[in-house]
Amino acid sequence: MAAKQHTLPQGFQTTGVTCGIKDSGLPDLSLFTSDTPATSVGVFTQNQVVGAPVIVSRGRVPSPSVRGIIINSGNANACTGEQGLTDAQRMTAILAEQFTCDESDVLVCSTGVIGHFLPMPVIENGIRDAFKQLGKSSEDLTKAAKSIMTTDTVEKISSKQIEIDGTLITVTGVAKGAAMIAPNMATMLSVIMTDCQLETSLADSMLKQAVNQSFNCISVEGHTSTSDTVLLMANGATGQGCASEQLQQALQSALNEVCSDLAQQIIRDAEGAEHFVRVEVSGLENEDDARRIAKVVCESPLVKTAVTGNDPNWGRIVSAAGYAGVPFQEQDLSLRLNDVVIYEWGSPTSFDESALSKSMATGEIKIQLEFRLGNEKMTYWTCDLTSEYIRLNADYTT
Amino acid sequence: MAAKQHTLPQGFQTTGVTCGIKDSGLPDLSLFTSDTPATSVGVFTQNQVVGAPVIVSRGRVPSPSVRGIIINSGNANACTGEQGLTDAQRMTAILAEQFTCDESDVLVCSTGVIGHFLPMPVIENGIRDAFKQLGKSSEDLTKAAKSIMTTDTVEKISSKQIEIDGTLITVTGVAKGAAMIAPNMATMLSVIMTDCQLETSLADSMLKQAVNQSFNCISVEGHTSTSDTVLLMANGATGQGCASEQLQQALQSALNEVCSDLAQQIIRDAEGAEHFVRVEVSGLENEDDARRIAKVVCESPLVKTAVTGNDPNWGRIVSAAGYAGVPFQEQDLSLRLNDVVIYEWGSPTSFDESALSKSMATGEIKIQLEFRLGNEKMTYWTCDLTSEYIRLNADYTT
Repeated sequence: MAAKQHTLPQGFQTTGVTCGIKDSGLPDLSLFTSDTPATSVGVFTQNQVVGAPVIVSRGRVPSPSVRGIIINSGNANACTGEQGLTDAQRMTAILAEQFTCDESDVLVCSTGVIGHFLPMPVIENGIRDAFKQLGKSSEDLTKAAKSIMTTDTVEKISSKQIEIDGTLITVTGVAKGAAMIAPNMATMLSVIMTDCQLETSLADSMLKQAVNQSFNCISVEGHTSTSDTVLLMANGATGQGCASEQLQQALQSALNEVCSDLAQQIIRDAEGAEHFVRVEVSGLENEDDARRIAKVVCESPLVKTAVTGNDPNWGRIVSAAGYAGVPFQEQDLSLRLNDVVIYEWGSPTSFDESALSKSMATGEIKIQLEFRLGNEKMTYWTCDLTSEYIRLNADYTT
Repeated sequence: MAAKQHTLPQGFQTTGVTCGIKDSGLPDLSLFTSDTPATSVGVFTQNQVVGAPVIVSRGRVPSPSVRGIIINSGNANACTGEQGLTDAQRMTAILAEQFTCDESDVLVCSTGVIGHFLPMPVIENGIRDAFKQLGKSSEDLTKAAKSIMTTDTVEKISSKQIEIDGTLITVTGVAKGAAMIAPNMATMLSVIMTDCQLETSLADSMLKQAVNQSFNCISVEGHTSTSDTVLLMANGATGQGCASEQLQQALQSALNEVCSDLAQQIIRDAEGAEHFVRVEVSGLENEDDARRIAKVVCESPLVKTAVTGNDPNWGRIVSAAGYAGVPFQEQDLSLRLNDVVIYEWGSPTSFDESALSKSMATGEIKIQLEFRLGNEKMTYWTCDLTSEYIRLNADYTT
């Protein structure tokens, strides 16, 4: 099968190399660069403990003039104190030298194990080496997407093209993340590039909206990481902006679509996952209530293991909803599992358990919690919890 | 080895029988009775979705005149609508007939699978049958403790005797719970009996204090169940009360000790658990902050699986503390694992990873998070997350 072709937005170059952080010899350093200064904004983890690169990059956005982003995998440069901060800044200085730009115009992310210092000599060489290999092809993008992977098994790329006022605009993103995934940006990183022209304040609000309905709606195990970062670069290479609200809405939709696609790719590649689970919560008074219930259902190990066993053990779903901290009466809740009503306004229905279990075995699970308390809703995505997840996580560092 | 002997407080009788709820033929119905009306108080699950027995029993305590408690295992009588309520009330009516007391003087608990109606004919016969077998021996208590078990592998009993003003007072409790254990009273049930004389209001505050430092400090996987209940019966059979604050404190200590012992027994018997984990959080501004951090660390699947693998992957512990919602700076946190300092005021230390991993392999883990923000602390207990847990929970109903 021929590799899928991806399109980089105009005026961007990317690459990925093996610099030698990972013992495995797999690629571990990526560059995402813009030929001209790009508007850049970011969304970061809400953990109190953050990696050094988060501190550095968070302090540099929003920015009208970012030239590049460095991401290394294999080491998160988190919980590394002053030395970690010095190292993260040094990484950006090395790339800035290549551009002859200010180091504040370079951003940095790191992902991997926590609490170890970066091997700076190999990283410095890696950045210089990668800079020489930058390119605009689909292959160059795939290399960049592969080099940010940790326990991911496939690279995650998503691209969408739209016409704005007769100009073709491209939005392209990559992401990584296989565990420590929780709403509020877990061990995931993502870079989104577009050749549309955007002011920083508009770019900021557009990225926040896109993240809120994509990366903030996924959960593997509810552990918010120290490194999560989504960065958007808009370099305006097409010369086209978003003058009207209608054009802005078109770009927002493209951005939402790319982020949502990447978020779902992360869940489909979650560590040990055998089932992809979509949780729809509707009929709540406000979106926050819907989000809290969706999150708790997605993070209940008892719900996840029932899914692992193709077991329509709906009591676990209803009882998870019950401890989300949202007041409700049982008679205001109905539950559908793969489109079968199994709990209707507070009472169990009779249904064909064996047929439902078979539909769960396809690996695609849809859980719909319908309340009759209002009109707000929320969709979340998660996966099941398997013995393979335990195996992968019981032996990650030693 | 001879079975351990347990002492019932004076004036109490217990037993357990097989009435036929469980397909396995294992014991599934217990009675705990007082020869005279007993002061009775309870603490119940905080889930919005509660089993019918919780609704019934919650409505009957505090009470000065409880005669008995029925507990069935194998079926939680939860999410069962009006029929469930009728069934729970009917159970209490059957036992009340035996006593010739009011049905409001009988309490009821159920534990097991959610969403199935109780098999009432076998339960009614079971209650009448059990009533005839009530006794005061250690064996009768063990039978009662065994008959409330679901996936527990051993019964949980704890007893403590103290002298108050020259009178011997006994506090004896039983508990069950192997999964769906979370603070705020998960799928656990416990009955505590004492022959001390207590007013309902004092009994209530004493039970709450005991539960708050025991059953509310354990977590297997953070799923709060629909059925959790702790009931205390004080029948005053010794004629001895707690007139002074000093005597009251002596009884409180005994009660705390029994509840804490039972709570730890639950964790040691948690589904699939291979490691017993004690998490001590200290140096916070208030107890609530300490509790939030302890809870999040105990419930992180990444912390749990690191423990499973005897892996001193301390970054997972620090990053879990970081998303508990308690603001702090990394330099105000130190971490000890089995008494080895591995993170000191925000920086990693160098330590012997292999020796530490060996100490973890003993199965006893102590995690100490020390902050320098105040003087409040909290201790929690949890277990690891193993493939055996997944196996047990992927196939529970089907």
